[in-house]
Amino acid sequence: MQSLNTEMEKFEVTILGCGSATPTPRHNPSAQIVNIHDKLSLVDCGEGTQMQMRTNRQRFMALRNVFISHLHGDHCLGLVGLISTFALLGRTKDFHVYAHAELQPLLDAQLKLFCHSLGFEVVFHVVEPHKHVLVYEDRTMEVWSLPLKHSMKATGYLFREKQGQRHINREMTDAYGIPVCYLNNIRAGEDWTMPDGRIIPNVRLTTPADPARSYAYCSDTAYYPALIPLLKGVDLLYHEATYDNSKAIKAKIHGHSTAGQAADIAKQAEVGKLLIGHYSAAYDSPALMLNQAREIFQNTIAADEGLTIVVEPHPKNAIPA
Amino acid sequence: MQSLNTEMEKFEVTILGCGSATPTPRHNPSAQIVNIHDKLSLVDCGEGTQMQMRTNRQRFMALRNVFISHLHGDHCLGLVGLISTFALLGRTKDFHVYAHAELQPLLDAQLKLFCHSLGFEVVFHVVEPHKHVLVYEDRTMEVWSLPLKHSMKATGYLFREKQGQRHINREMTDAYGIPVCYLNNIRAGEDWTMPDGRIIPNVRLTTPADPARSYAYCSDTAYYPALIPLLKGVDLLYHEATYDNSKAIKAKIHGHSTAGQAADIAKQAEVGKLLIGHYSAAYDSPALMLNQAREIFQNTIAADEGLTIVVEPHPKNAIPA
Repeated sequence: MQSLNTEMEKFEVTILGCGSATPTPRHNPSAQIVNIHDKLSLVDCGEGTQMQMRTNRQRFMALRNVFISHLHGDHCLGLVGLISTFALLGRTKDFHVYAHAELQPLLDAQLKLFCHSLGFEVVFHVVEPHKHVLVYEDRTMEVWSLPLKHSMKATGYLFREKQGQRHINREMTDAYGIPVCYLNNIRAGEDWTMPDGRIIPNVRLTTPADPARSYAYCSDTAYYPALIPLLKGVDLLYHEATYDNSKAIKAKIHGHSTAGQAADIAKQAEVGKLLIGHYSAAYDSPALMLNQAREIFQNTIAADEGLTIVVEPHPKNAIPA
Repeated sequence: MQSLNTEMEKFEVTILGCGSATPTPRHNPSAQIVNIHDKLSLVDCGEGTQMQMRTNRQRFMALRNVFISHLHGDHCLGLVGLISTFALLGRTKDFHVYAHAELQPLLDAQLKLFCHSLGFEVVFHVVEPHKHVLVYEDRTMEVWSLPLKHSMKATGYLFREKQGQRHINREMTDAYGIPVCYLNNIRAGEDWTMPDGRIIPNVRLTTPADPARSYAYCSDTAYYPALIPLLKGVDLLYHEATYDNSKAIKAKIHGHSTAGQAADIAKQAEVGKLLIGHYSAAYDSPALMLNQAREIFQNTIAADEGLTIVVEPHPKNAIPA
């Protein structure tokens, strides 16, 4: 695998909560921060998310949007408190909520009661469940919905970094006397024509762009092989592993996955790394789930509150030296 | 002050959260457990209350009711998560919510969305703000509303233990050969008539009943002297002290109190002990507020998450030896 380019832009995931519906002193309900090039998105917003952001020193006001997977309380009950606090802190920038349509009237009613005068707009974007479509896009990233299979309709999210530009080799551009004002064209792939007409090919002036990375969030979901083609080759996959392998029947009944099932999806989708979470309150530690997942997919790590995972390029995407 | 009778029934307050609206890593939003004779009531239910109950090993399912002071998010946003968890844990006993009327339609809508099938009833009791009336009563306790003065309508609560029975002096009842089946009459104050007609006065057979104790919760409120007669002589008073004395103007604008104002109310109401809380996020520690309050009312303590305060009889209520 390539060593990380020190110029590589930030793409990391911070776990704020990786427990399941029943609260424990060990885990908070679901919430994560996805930081792509210093743009912060929240994925799910269980009760206590705003306190977890404080505890983990996340930049509160930098949050641009939240992507809610489904309308179970442990994935969205922290939303109104978060928005209330934005108001108290004097936010003026719009905040975007991506969720299933049923949340909107309730959110509106709560904001009316708890947040009388917001200095910003809460913009609601309806996410259609059971679809794999582009729900968000900007200059540097895309977010796609992922249909999940749960006890109620549920949607995962796939974060894709857009392909960046090539990196300037300053030694070479200096040697050829290329003016600074032209460097953006070189980054974009143009060759350089010398005053004597010689053409210096771009490949001599630049090093390859960083591979565009991707992160998929799949929680809550039963074992759902239909996801495999949609997750093919993602660099980091968060897949719930509520139960250990002995609880496969219970998992199926409740629309959840075992550790082995999460790892099976990761293996078949040939992802770079698997991150498991959403542990049942019955477990004191995720060790059992981690071991069971690693038997099937070695490159697995266990989510924990406060853990930040840098999304690294998939080993298969390593750039040839 | 009398030494505590070891037979004295439980009356204690456990702080689950004593911060104010903006969350900090130091404090949770408002919530307390009032335990009177092992009957548990919740007072306010800010976001994260259920996690705080777990962390502080409070008996989840023993909660009978919640008394909400007002409809700011930091005093009630934990309610739906708590009720959801009751459902997940298989609760069957009704749960009673005492709050202002505006909460009811929103709570109903949330329960409909987040708690599809409850195995118990959530019974809503409308609390009228600006009134001092009995809102709850059972065999051992009463709860009275207390009008507060805040930026929105707000209601405090006064918990009053009912006067218990006198304590049997077993040595004496044995000496007079009083049968066990008659002891309840003796506890209730009756004298004993000997077979020879002699009357043994009750006071020889019993020791005095424990004094009936009281606890008042006053948050959120500006300095509000109208409270003083309603709080006269309570054993323990929780009074918010959001700010130190230098922030009196800010306190007034936002409908909050300074430490000095809280202590002034305690002093004028001649309460037994003052407990301050609801600290602004601007303070790293409650030390300043505690010192300022003690200058006016010495018997003051500072609330902190996890602290349990035994409600002791007011020094003035000490039973003569």
